Amino acid sequence: MRVAHIAPLYERVPPMLYGGTERIVSYLVEEQVRRGHQVTLFASGDSRSAADIVAPVPRALRLDAGHSDPLAPHVVELAQVFEQADDFDLIHSHVDYLAFPFSRLVTTPTVHTLHGRLDLPHLRPLMLHFADIPLVSISNAQRRPLEQLELNWTATVYHGLPLDFYAPGRGDGKYVAFLGRIAPEKGPGLAIAAAKAAGVRLKIAAKVDPVDRAYFESEIEPLLADPLIDYVGEIGEADKRRFLGEAMALLFPIDWPEPFGLVMIEALACGTPVVARPCGSVPEIITPGRTGFLADTLDEIVQALRSVDRLDRAQCRREAERRFGVERMVDDYDAVYESLATGAPRT
Amino acid sequence: MRVAHIAPLYERVPPMLYGGTERIVSYLVEEQVRRGHQVTLFASGDSRSAADIVAPVPRALRLDAGHSDPLAPHVVELAQVFEQADDFDLIHSHVDYLAFPFSRLVTTPTVHTLHGRLDLPHLRPLMLHFADIPLVSISNAQRRPLEQLELNWTATVYHGLPLDFYAPGRGDGKYVAFLGRIAPEKGPGLAIAAAKAAGVRLKIAAKVDPVDRAYFESEIEPLLADPLIDYVGEIGEADKRRFLGEAMALLFPIDWPEPFGLVMIEALACGTPVVARPCGSVPEIITPGRTGFLADTLDEIVQALRSVDRLDRAQCRREAERRFGVERMVDDYDAVYESLATGAPRT
Repeated sequence: MRVAHIAPLYERVPPMLYGGTERIVSYLVEEQVRRGHQVTLFASGDSRSAADIVAPVPRALRLDAGHSDPLAPHVVELAQVFEQADDFDLIHSHVDYLAFPFSRLVTTPTVHTLHGRLDLPHLRPLMLHFADIPLVSISNAQRRPLEQLELNWTATVYHGLPLDFYAPGRGDGKYVAFLGRIAPEKGPGLAIAAAKAAGVRLKIAAKVDPVDRAYFESEIEPLLADPLIDYVGEIGEADKRRFLGEAMALLFPIDWPEPFGLVMIEALACGTPVVARPCGSVPEIITPGRTGFLADTLDEIVQALRSVDRLDRAQCRREAERRFGVERMVDDYDAVYESLATGAPRT
Repeated sequence: MRVAHIAPLYERVPPMLYGGTERIVSYLVEEQVRRGHQVTLFASGDSRSAADIVAPVPRALRLDAGHSDPLAPHVVELAQVFEQADDFDLIHSHVDYLAFPFSRLVTTPTVHTLHGRLDLPHLRPLMLHFADIPLVSISNAQRRPLEQLELNWTATVYHGLPLDFYAPGRGDGKYVAFLGRIAPEKGPGLAIAAAKAAGVRLKIAAKVDPVDRAYFESEIEPLLADPLIDYVGEIGEADKRRFLGEAMALLFPIDWPEPFGLVMIEALACGTPVVARPCGSVPEIITPGRTGFLADTLDEIVQALRSVDRLDRAQCRREAERRFGVERMVDDYDAVYESLATGAPRT
């Protein structure tokens, strides 16, 4: 099958550092190429892929500080894709709603995986206008704010990881892990309070974006002066796997409608259970008592942290293999593609 | 001819207050309807027009403080336009490059009037990708930064005004006018310095946007305490015409590549000559010694302010009638439409 992927241009594919969408596009594309699909990847020119790359810009926009207008290169990208739509059997967009209006102007089937949150009010009239366009959600929770709109959801496809890269760890580091970004919606303050109350060590491996710098300095930094709390800053991909694998648990006390939460399945791939607040996708990813605990309040989180050593780490890894491998993800997308390419009726 | 106009959604058409593009779209559309074109205006739902209005949003975005994402309604607008492209003989876009990629996907001829500055480096790769798409510039100066790119400029069409609305004034108010917005690129500091040096009274009718508030307070406000300087704040449309008509001259000491400069032709329509720095479009609009003076430095501006009473105000008004009326603008666009609709070769 001749498939075109439209990747965001903010990060290269795969990204150097942060960039969940570009990472998933990379996993998806490489596995599709391995399976014999003829894949064209529209992405920044510094991307690396076994697919044919068409690059609207030479370098990822986030590295290009002088780029004042990120929309312009995406407009070029969309033109490049849809001008040659006839060369593809299917076009798969990862740039949110930007590609919607092109779907109706070409005969090639298109599908749009929505990678962001969908609970923002301004999206409703837009989604309503494009109610017939084939969409994929990355969790069932993600589409819930729009469930009254009768949109054309073809599937929920959970993200998948190349599990061979994630060796199961032993969880013997005697700490709980907080990984990602310091921001109010990620709950670092609650994580610290819970670790202190439970008397367990917390290692925080997280970046601070400029926009969150003031929050970090006023709300979080004063909490770090405690022997139980260890702030290690931002870490790279290889360190991340060791960091997760040695942790007793990943603590994910989020306070926002998380559309997926890649770090949860990274933890499971490392055999590490997850203690998370039940927001957004979390209840779909974590099975309480098996791969972690859902804990809403400080008390519940403290209780969960005291119980994680009862969970079977091999079970966590098996769950990752069963549900969150890249092959399962590509199987799911193949099924979506088949249903669209053959014009199967909407279900 | 069945014409679709794609207006920006930031202001209604015509705008309540500021909004040069939406004003020009309004003038153009109303005159085209008067001439018997069948016009569909895609614009915010609070717009007023004799054309058929299709509204992607009920209200102009600038009045809708809660609207966090101005791109989304424009994406809906573009979908609405191009999904029914076959219903139009010509599609005329005023939303900068946003509609470019759709031009190649429909058979209906499209033309894009570019209303903004084109000297920004990030535009070059975009424009290059769309080199064949029919463009209209609003001055020859506007397209100069891109002249090496061999784009498909079909014409320069200067803006035009409904001149009946502008009664020629007497210019007997014993002041020079500064009108528009307080911002560094508009040169209010230079205007004040020149008025003081020339010993003429300067009336400043200008708004201060939040982004320019600090500049106003630190750079301009301290200069206002002078009997020659009279800061009157923002004024409405009717007051504006009187304000211009009673002025000896409009002072337009800009320091940026002005793509057109609507206020210059408003002054001429009121019979008021213009003293302007020769940036961007200015030398195309103002004929030195006839409808004003081009003056670059403080000394030259002072000299010009001392000489404006030599200019013939009736001449200024006649020049507005000859070159900057809405009928001439619509004649020009009709010629553009004809050349595109009949597939005339690119010139």
